Amino acid sequence: MSMGERIMALSERAAVHSEPGPGVTRLLGTPEHKALLADLSGWMKQAGLSVELDGAGNLVGRTVPVAGAKTLIIGSHQDTVRQGGKYDGMLGVLLPLVVLEDLHKSGTTLPVNIELVAFSDEEGARFSSTLVGSSALAGTFESTMLDALDRDGNTLGDALRDLGADPSTIPQLARDPDRIAGFLEVHIEQGPALESLDLPVGIVTAITGIERHSVTITGKAGHAGTTPMHLRRDALVAATEVVRIVDRLCRDTDDLVGVVGELNVTPNAVNVIPSQVDLTVELRSPSSVIRREAREQLFREIEGALNQSPCQWRHERRYEQTEVRCSDAIQTRLARSIEAEGFEPHRLFSGAGHDGLAMNALTEVGMLFVRCKDGLSHHPDEAITAADADSAARVLRHCLQHWEARD
Amino acid sequence: MSMGERIMALSERAAVHSEPGPGVTRLLGTPEHKALLADLSGWMKQAGLSVELDGAGNLVGRTVPVAGAKTLIIGSHQDTVRQGGKYDGMLGVLLPLVVLEDLHKSGTTLPVNIELVAFSDEEGARFSSTLVGSSALAGTFESTMLDALDRDGNTLGDALRDLGADPSTIPQLARDPDRIAGFLEVHIEQGPALESLDLPVGIVTAITGIERHSVTITGKAGHAGTTPMHLRRDALVAATEVVRIVDRLCRDTDDLVGVVGELNVTPNAVNVIPSQVDLTVELRSPSSVIRREAREQLFREIEGALNQSPCQWRHERRYEQTEVRCSDAIQTRLARSIEAEGFEPHRLFSGAGHDGLAMNALTEVGMLFVRCKDGLSHHPDEAITAADADSAARVLRHCLQHWEARD
Repeated sequence: MSMGERIMALSERAAVHSEPGPGVTRLLGTPEHKALLADLSGWMKQAGLSVELDGAGNLVGRTVPVAGAKTLIIGSHQDTVRQGGKYDGMLGVLLPLVVLEDLHKSGTTLPVNIELVAFSDEEGARFSSTLVGSSALAGTFESTMLDALDRDGNTLGDALRDLGADPSTIPQLARDPDRIAGFLEVHIEQGPALESLDLPVGIVTAITGIERHSVTITGKAGHAGTTPMHLRRDALVAATEVVRIVDRLCRDTDDLVGVVGELNVTPNAVNVIPSQVDLTVELRSPSSVIRREAREQLFREIEGALNQSPCQWRHERRYEQTEVRCSDAIQTRLARSIEAEGFEPHRLFSGAGHDGLAMNALTEVGMLFVRCKDGLSHHPDEAITAADADSAARVLRHCLQHWEARD
Repeated sequence: MSMGERIMALSERAAVHSEPGPGVTRLLGTPEHKALLADLSGWMKQAGLSVELDGAGNLVGRTVPVAGAKTLIIGSHQDTVRQGGKYDGMLGVLLPLVVLEDLHKSGTTLPVNIELVAFSDEEGARFSSTLVGSSALAGTFESTMLDALDRDGNTLGDALRDLGADPSTIPQLARDPDRIAGFLEVHIEQGPALESLDLPVGIVTAITGIERHSVTITGKAGHAGTTPMHLRRDALVAATEVVRIVDRLCRDTDDLVGVVGELNVTPNAVNVIPSQVDLTVELRSPSSVIRREAREQLFREIEGALNQSPCQWRHERRYEQTEVRCSDAIQTRLARSIEAEGFEPHRLFSGAGHDGLAMNALTEVGMLFVRCKDGLSHHPDEAITAADADSAARVLRHCLQHWEARD
């Protein structure tokens, strides 16, 4: 059985641990999470790892320590969105696990210590929290987050205890940066770029920065039959300007994507002129400079367009996450290994957030993307091929075996 | 006390009969409806009318019959939208009532018999029905409508019985067209035209025709971070074309108004590309020809724009109501009376629907509009002035006193 076939087989077995319904739903601190960790613990032990469940709900498998070597943390998250797929997250646990198993079977000793981590959550679909596990390792976990509630009023702290974890130990989980060699994550691309280039893997240059704004446009409600067109203050007509400006600006700017994803009309009745539209604008870029310039341009254009409309408008920045640049050194290592396995070392940025956003506070981060079918993720039909899993596993194996090499 | 002051006073007293909350909420067959009719019955009797509650929940007040004279039906609806105003509907009952009271006090006999009707409903806010009272008089009431349900599962038939009406008698309410002289309704304009012209009253030329379409635009959901701009199929971006085409076409076409009043985005999440937009298009015109030509132009333009987009779309006509042309003869009578009272006889069309839509099946219809503040209606702040009410009352009194005159 190739490493790729083994990865696919374990992915199927892991996907069994899901709430009922389409796809995979596995949230932090649930019975599904606990059942997965039991299986995963066994697989880690077969790969020669010593296994520990830490206070943040992370399952950590360690190679036999090599004296004097630093530790490379490898991993991804065990949790999914509701009705997600089999690979977003888990591939980044199972693929390195199969590589370590392969190295273990061949008796290969690595030049770096490995901690393989199945982070407790990254999607954060259960609690109003995310990156619980990775922020614990990075030493940035805020203990007030333990009081975050799920839909049923359970706290994050209780969920961790349900798992058998002791959240009071989280402060001791922070790793010593001097002893860490870096953080490396394998993840499906979640986009169509590698597929369109016919490449199995890609090197991530940065994890996108994100900003979100809420925009409110205020017009005036009126009877849609009795208000003459020239006296209308239709908030929806004005809102179309915003949707179109966001779309055009992002199409015209490299390394920038954006969307009006949410738009709500008030009063939203067939025969009433819309009096208010509330919408969201999201911009993402691997470059803070591009994102800032785009934002300034965006609001200049919106102001220009809406000041000519009969409506008022206001906006508020609701969220901002600065991008994380991936380590040049890790990018170089990955490129060397990709070339060694016979592929073109294509670089691309990640438009989605990842555990590296938290881990970057601790150490330099790197990511290897694996091609996924139709660029689809967060969906039951999320898919990769065994051949691509095998290619990525060989790249990772090469990279780990040659970790001591420096340019 | 002037007729205008009396109208304002009775309007305040009628508005007391409302569900709690802002403005006036008085729906068919409710305790508020019943309480209003008790007051109204007393006021009608003071005006010398004989009073009857008919099987459709209409309160009908009749002048002492003049042998050989036809009957002019005057009236409007007693019901309101939820949280509506004091004048939409009730003004068309109370203003003629005060005129008849004035004529009664002065011992004036009219050259035409009058039936003053407070129709049971026109807004139709309680049941999925409208024009119950007027369609009963016109002989077009469908008895299956008695099974229409309100939010709590009560039928229209039960609501009429709660009022003390016997709906089994509705078929006998249809008036004999040969004995009817016409239908005349006084109503607030519900728009800003008379206010902008500084005129207290206006003559309605037609009650608008209405058509409503549902349009569904289908794109493809996708992660708003990982899907490149050029691969997106954003249904909201495509939907902006529809909103803008409707608005521009209606601005560029006389005697046509239209709106996209309702628009719903799926999945409507800040970080997901919109996969579907469902929206409504409403067009109104006093001319079927203008409306048909506009509809054809509209869908040609939408097709042209959306066929260039990466989205699919479909539409369905959900509702159509042909316009009612107001009687030339009644328009002429009203114009003569308006001039006699010293005002300019301005003609305008009604963009809103009215009881005349149903009454037109029985007889020729006419409407007198009264200026309202800021064109506002269906709102607690709906307002008119006592001076305008008085002007309109004098116009109506003149019109009734000179009904026998023919051009």
